[in-house]
Amino acid sequence: MSDEHIIYIGKKPTMNYVLAVVSQFNIGIPQVTVKARGRAISKAVDVVLIVKDRFVQNSEIQGIIVNTEVLESSEGQPTKVSSIEIPMIKS
Amino acid sequence: MSDEHIIYIGKKPTMNYVLAVVSQFNIGIPQVTVKARGRAISKAVDVVLIVKDRFVQNSEIQGIIVNTEVLESSEGQPTKVSSIEIPMIKS
Repeated sequence: MSDEHIIYIGKKPTMNYVLAVVSQFNIGIPQVTVKARGRAISKAVDVVLIVKDRFVQNSEIQGIIVNTEVLESSEGQPTKVSSIEIPMIKS
Repeated sequence: MSDEHIIYIGKKPTMNYVLAVVSQFNIGIPQVTVKARGRAISKAVDVVLIVKDRFVQNSEIQGIIVNTEVLESSEGQPTKVSSIEIPMIKS
């Protein structure tokens, strides 16, 4: 799967990411994965549910994966952060 | 499954909930489900990953379920909120 089918959730408003996912489905991409880290995880869950409930009725949420990622902080210390990956398919 | 095997994530520090899950496993309960709504979803993911990575090595995260719940606000208006359920088992 190439990077263009992945939507990374950041600090923008939720609806920006919803529209990004919907746009991918609308151009015919059958699977889009929503990824987030840390506090953005809650927003990632909001995004996939809004897409499914309101915009792409024939979409489905697939197996959700959570993981611990080790990042390097600005001081060079390793920092652990939770991440989530939510694959969605349009049937 | 009775309610005592469910840990609801709220506003307390993350480690409180980690210890709650670990305690359930330690008294012999084989499956504990972590549930959260809204912004607490990120904390729920932190909790299960900390339990698995640091405290209960032979635990596993099972199929994660996300859903939209409709709550009634104080003004009587329905409000939608995302929820997550993360079942963990100890083998």
